[in-house]
Amino acid sequence: MISTETNALMNITEFVANSIGHWRSQRSAHHLAFGHFEAVQSEIDIVSLSADDPAVLDLCKTYNIDPQTAVSPFRMSWEGQSDWEDSERVKGTCVLVPIPDPNQSNRGKLLRDQGYAEEIAAIGDYTLTEDGTFVLVTPYDRAAAEEKIWFVNPNVRCRVSLIKTSAGTGVVTASFASEIRQVTKD
Amino acid sequence: MISTETNALMNITEFVANSIGHWRSQRSAHHLAFGHFEAVQSEIDIVSLSADDPAVLDLCKTYNIDPQTAVSPFRMSWEGQSDWEDSERVKGTCVLVPIPDPNQSNRGKLLRDQGYAEEIAAIGDYTLTEDGTFVLVTPYDRAAAEEKIWFVNPNVRCRVSLIKTSAGTGVVTASFASEIRQVTKD
Repeated sequence: MISTETNALMNITEFVANSIGHWRSQRSAHHLAFGHFEAVQSEIDIVSLSADDPAVLDLCKTYNIDPQTAVSPFRMSWEGQSDWEDSERVKGTCVLVPIPDPNQSNRGKLLRDQGYAEEIAAIGDYTLTEDGTFVLVTPYDRAAAEEKIWFVNPNVRCRVSLIKTSAGTGVVTASFASEIRQVTKD
Repeated sequence: MISTETNALMNITEFVANSIGHWRSQRSAHHLAFGHFEAVQSEIDIVSLSADDPAVLDLCKTYNIDPQTAVSPFRMSWEGQSDWEDSERVKGTCVLVPIPDPNQSNRGKLLRDQGYAEEIAAIGDYTLTEDGTFVLVTPYDRAAAEEKIWFVNPNVRCRVSLIKTSAGTGVVTASFASEIRQVTKD
C-alpha cells in the first residue's frame, strides 16, 4: 500500500541513529545564475562519537556550550569526484554535535567544526518536521545554508541544500543528493 | 534574519496561486541503479483554468467526481532539452485538478490527465505540511511517484520527485528541479 508517511515526531537521537552507516551518494548542484549543472559521486561515512570524544569537547568549548547537553554527536567523512573543473577530487571530514532544545524535542542547535557554505566552525538551528524531515538553517559570514534531509526508506535518504546570500533572499546554489546505504560485510 | 520558515498551514488555493507563472527549470535525475546523472533544462508555464473548462469537466468525469468540488484547476506545460540520449527534446502539457478533502483543508486528491511516471490519467493524494511543502503520492500500474514541492521564496521553488517500484520500497529514480520565476514583460 502506498501512503503519505506521517511519522510521529522524530527526535534527533533517532534521526542520527538512522543516518549512521556507509552511503553512496549522487549529488547534483545547480548553480542558478549560470544554469550550470555539477555532478558529484561520493562515498559518505557517518559514525557515532562518544560524548567525551576530544573533538566533541573542543567544539562545545568553542561555542561555550555545556558538553553534558550534547546528544548523539557524530563524524561525517566524504570522498568523491566532481565533474566540475577537470574531475576535481572532493574529500573532507566534519564533526557534528546536536544540542537539543530542552523544551522541544524536535528542535535544537547543531554545532559543526567545518561549515558547509564556508570552511569554518558553524552553529545552525534544526527542526524535525511532522513528516520526518530534518531542516537545518545555518548562517555564515557571507552566506546562509538551508538543508533538508529525509529518509525515503531506511536505506535511501535525500538531501537538498540551498546556499543563499547572507541577506537570505537570493538562492545561489541548489543541490540535491540521493544517498543509498551500502551494506558492508563483516 | 534567517529563520526556519514555519508557515501557517497553506491551502491548495494559495499553493496553486503561488505557482502560476512562467518558470525556468534546471532538473537533475539520478538513475540510482546505474549511478547515472541526467540534466534537463526547460521552461515551464503554469496557468489557471476556469472551473468550467472542458478539460477540467472531462477529467472529473473520468474519475466520476463532481466538478463542483474542484478547486484551482490549472494547466502545466513544459518544453526543454535533456542531455540523455543525444539531447532528446522534452515537451508536454498536463491538466491538473485539485479536489480538497472537505474535512481537512491541507489534504485532498489531485487528478491529472497525463501522469508523471506513466502517460495515463492518474489520481494522487496530496498533503500540505506545516512547513509549506506540497507532498503528492500517486500510484500507477507499474510504479508509484512521490513528489515534494516547496517555495524557498516567492520566485524560487524546489521539486523532488521519486519514482518507486509499485511495491513501494525500491527507489528507481530520484530527481530534483530548481525553478526560477521568469518575469514576463507585458
